[in-house]
Amino acid sequence: MENYRKRLDDLRERINYQLESYFKYKLDECNDSKIAHVIEKLRDFTMNGGKRVRPILMIMGYSMFAEPDDRIIKASISIEMAQSFLLIHDDIMDQSDMRRGKPSFHRAVEKTLNGDSVERIAENIAISAGDLIDTFSHEALLRSGFGLENLLDADFEFSKIIEDTGKGQILDIYSSIEDVYSEDRLLKLHFLKTARYTIQGPLLMGAYLSGNKKYIQDIKDYGKYAGIAFQLYDDLLGLFGSEEKTGKSIKSDVNEGKKTLLMIKAYENSSEEIRKFIESCLKNGNINDSDFNRLREIVKSTGSYEYTKQKIDEYNGLARSALARIDGNRDTIEMLDFLLEYLIKREN
Amino acid sequence: MENYRKRLDDLRERINYQLESYFKYKLDECNDSKIAHVIEKLRDFTMNGGKRVRPILMIMGYSMFAEPDDRIIKASISIEMAQSFLLIHDDIMDQSDMRRGKPSFHRAVEKTLNGDSVERIAENIAISAGDLIDTFSHEALLRSGFGLENLLDADFEFSKIIEDTGKGQILDIYSSIEDVYSEDRLLKLHFLKTARYTIQGPLLMGAYLSGNKKYIQDIKDYGKYAGIAFQLYDDLLGLFGSEEKTGKSIKSDVNEGKKTLLMIKAYENSSEEIRKFIESCLKNGNINDSDFNRLREIVKSTGSYEYTKQKIDEYNGLARSALARIDGNRDTIEMLDFLLEYLIKREN
Repeated sequence: MENYRKRLDDLRERINYQLESYFKYKLDECNDSKIAHVIEKLRDFTMNGGKRVRPILMIMGYSMFAEPDDRIIKASISIEMAQSFLLIHDDIMDQSDMRRGKPSFHRAVEKTLNGDSVERIAENIAISAGDLIDTFSHEALLRSGFGLENLLDADFEFSKIIEDTGKGQILDIYSSIEDVYSEDRLLKLHFLKTARYTIQGPLLMGAYLSGNKKYIQDIKDYGKYAGIAFQLYDDLLGLFGSEEKTGKSIKSDVNEGKKTLLMIKAYENSSEEIRKFIESCLKNGNINDSDFNRLREIVKSTGSYEYTKQKIDEYNGLARSALARIDGNRDTIEMLDFLLEYLIKREN
Repeated sequence: MENYRKRLDDLRERINYQLESYFKYKLDECNDSKIAHVIEKLRDFTMNGGKRVRPILMIMGYSMFAEPDDRIIKASISIEMAQSFLLIHDDIMDQSDMRRGKPSFHRAVEKTLNGDSVERIAENIAISAGDLIDTFSHEALLRSGFGLENLLDADFEFSKIIEDTGKGQILDIYSSIEDVYSEDRLLKLHFLKTARYTIQGPLLMGAYLSGNKKYIQDIKDYGKYAGIAFQLYDDLLGLFGSEEKTGKSIKSDVNEGKKTLLMIKAYENSSEEIRKFIESCLKNGNINDSDFNRLREIVKSTGSYEYTKQKIDEYNGLARSALARIDGNRDTIEMLDFLLEYLIKREN
């Protein structure tokens, strides 16, 4: 295990180096101080923290079938920049002030502006900056040095990942304004909004770049189930994790009205009175400590907490079986197995 | 000339057919009613009007060097969908209620929602829908059926076009909050925000898809100068055109505080007192008829109107020379020449 941690750290370092190099190239070619300023903000936002889970998974998807070199590290930063793009737009939509323990992108931009209605202008710059780093992500992939056919396969997959994530985001917005507590719908959402671009998509891109298409279906299964397990665990951390470690308010999921599996199962297993209480918590927008603690107790007493943990284990098991069907580099597959554990035992 | 109009109408019809087919395919593969609803809205927004200038130019860039077939029509819809993506995000940023004589995308979505704070939610759906159609534009290009090498060249160019447009958008936002009246800066903005993606980029994509890279520099020159002429003319229409024909309020450029060449030259050629008046008009946000008419008179009396028209002719001439250097299909080049006239004599 120590060995895996060291290798993950090593990969992270190589990814960060390529990210820094790419931003340096974009700043060097830029001849306008305002645009350079925004690119610097994009660099700072991207370089600040982040576990680099997605690029690491792209590298793993590749390493299962081919010997990794600098090209795959260069290609892998594409998905990390796509992550910045999505987070920047997400934080505008959610009106989030913080991200990874620092101001969210639009808030960071707001601090650099003077005058009236800077809030709206900062959001506008952030929308455009998100669109801009989306194009960077694409360029980084296309400049990675791979051959045409594999590159186009990966590029197509990349586009489909962002498409599915966008669809998930739209479902998420509609869910937030409708009084529907449905596990099926939630799982669809977790697949589209998380599994696709956090696990399955990056692995598929890596596999396509390697040129081996034999295990695409198994990778799809692994990615789907691992991704859903990851998101369910994320929701668990969102309600029971440490604010200090997750870098966001422990109340933010509830204040955003997120109907997580924890909420859905608690709702299903509750009396009419408690259901009204859960609904009121999710619509409050600024829940107080007492109601928040009561809500957490309900999640535990209704068995929802245990149910969610059980579901995480179940999906984790399905992911593990799919992984076992893939005939690829042993070391990488074992590392993917280790990563699966890490994803659902992490604290942030 | 009648002949050109007929051919342009014919191209528009073929482009619209491929757009309809693509949206039909996206709706057929979609298994969620909420997402399908948003895709329908994207279809309606894209199909409503639009002169299809960009896809037509991509087809021309191709036709200069190769015999056009269905593949280039299919590829050409990519830039029209990118246009929808950019307009949707633009209208959110500008808080515009109308587009092409109908409600802007976020306003159209807002009408379908019930309950509190639907304005914000409609904007969030619109941000995501914009991101979604951006991925559609990419997919449409990749599925057009061209060979790998030409496709990747065009794909790379596509990504760079959107990158430059994003940079232009950022410059535009900063310009709107700074008291700088600079012709140089404006021309940079017009190049990045308009010339690149309206003229130069589409033509280059078409040329790359044809596989002929010999006249890339001449196409770049033609596209740059024609694009700037187009935008300067657009600014002219924005202040002196017909509301009915442009489909937007004649005051919207002024109310958005746009420092067009008309404003910059009027400012440069005015006394301190008139400068203060111009500044106050651009900061007003809701100018009255009397001030608006006085502003238009100042633009004429300072010679700014004539200067702008002269600049349009100058850039138009530079575009024409660049075009003359290209050895390609005569018919197409003559049609591009005709289009140049059309772009700066149109009424909407």
